[in-house]
Amino acid sequence: MAKKSNISISVIRRLPRYLRYLNDLDKQGVTRISSGELSSLMGLTASQIRQDLNCFGEFGQQGYGYNVELLKNAILSILGADRAEKLIIIGYGNLGKAIARNMDFENKGFELIAVFDSDPSKIGTNAKNCKVLNISELENFCHANKPVAAALCIPMEAALPIAKQLIDCGVRCFWNFSHCDIAMDMKDVLVENVHLGDSLMTLAYKLKNL
Amino acid sequence: MAKKSNISISVIRRLPRYLRYLNDLDKQGVTRISSGELSSLMGLTASQIRQDLNCFGEFGQQGYGYNVELLKNAILSILGADRAEKLIIIGYGNLGKAIARNMDFENKGFELIAVFDSDPSKIGTNAKNCKVLNISELENFCHANKPVAAALCIPMEAALPIAKQLIDCGVRCFWNFSHCDIAMDMKDVLVENVHLGDSLMTLAYKLKNL
Repeated sequence: MAKKSNISISVIRRLPRYLRYLNDLDKQGVTRISSGELSSLMGLTASQIRQDLNCFGEFGQQGYGYNVELLKNAILSILGADRAEKLIIIGYGNLGKAIARNMDFENKGFELIAVFDSDPSKIGTNAKNCKVLNISELENFCHANKPVAAALCIPMEAALPIAKQLIDCGVRCFWNFSHCDIAMDMKDVLVENVHLGDSLMTLAYKLKNL
Repeated sequence: MAKKSNISISVIRRLPRYLRYLNDLDKQGVTRISSGELSSLMGLTASQIRQDLNCFGEFGQQGYGYNVELLKNAILSILGADRAEKLIIIGYGNLGKAIARNMDFENKGFELIAVFDSDPSKIGTNAKNCKVLNISELENFCHANKPVAAALCIPMEAALPIAKQLIDCGVRCFWNFSHCDIAMDMKDVLVENVHLGDSLMTLAYKLKNL
């Protein structure tokens, strides 16, 4: 499969959505689909779909459409979602719990190996397939287990010092739910922000301009 | 203030981030800031900042910079974040709790007026400033209280029928955390999706291509 370099992040951000639809089709036993059918399902134009998927080489065949399983696996591989990078969650409040318990990490490129909190009533409890550990053990744990990614489910005030500590321990990749920007000036640190307040204000704007 | 029509959604999506920085500056007692200072704070170029803010008319003054409070209030007003549109939350699991308890709705354009769940152990409890109500009361509640927006913090299987029921009750605006797309073919229904799994896969991609 030929891979174009410099694929825009907006194309990348659309791929997980393709994957959701392809997973559903796969579960329903659908083995192939035309760009036209996929477009009406997803509310995109067929040409948008062809353009997005052509970025990664030629998946579709004229008159045949897309092979659902092949396309699904190709997108998984492009996204790196077929890997199992070690991830920890910092903060086992309601948000941390929601993510630890409900997120399907293994199909999204990650393996959840531990959760950290400072609340004695939470430490030692089970979070899905791993334990909630004391935040004071963070450094030792990182040196022994080498997680590459951390989900920050902690308040803004705690996020900056914890991110710094994690970077010092070799963590290079952050899923940041805290209400601030982290590690902006560090070129080898990756951050994916989920700023829920920003998203809610975007909704406020859409509503105001309805 | 002159307002350009057709402001792109990507500019809109950047405005809440400006607002976060302006709020911080305001709290620190900073009353004015140049685009150069703001740019180094936010990790954007000064020309990007001028371009974004010029979309909405002339905020800055040559040699003076931006008045922090004026700019903050102008962005709040542009986003509609100075309003108080009635919002309900559907689902009081961990995610619903995280949002009900921690989201600062009143500074983001909304007023949380009720939370709904079907779990008898949750019904009747307090969720911040409102009650958790039985989902069976949803229709009556909507007719009496006319919420315009709903945050869907429920599993995918429940999201489509609940969204349909809410639309029938006059709700026109969804903050959708469920792992599926809703109301795609309805032009007068607004949806802001927070697909956490999609965000995590974007992080997987960034990590793979580090």
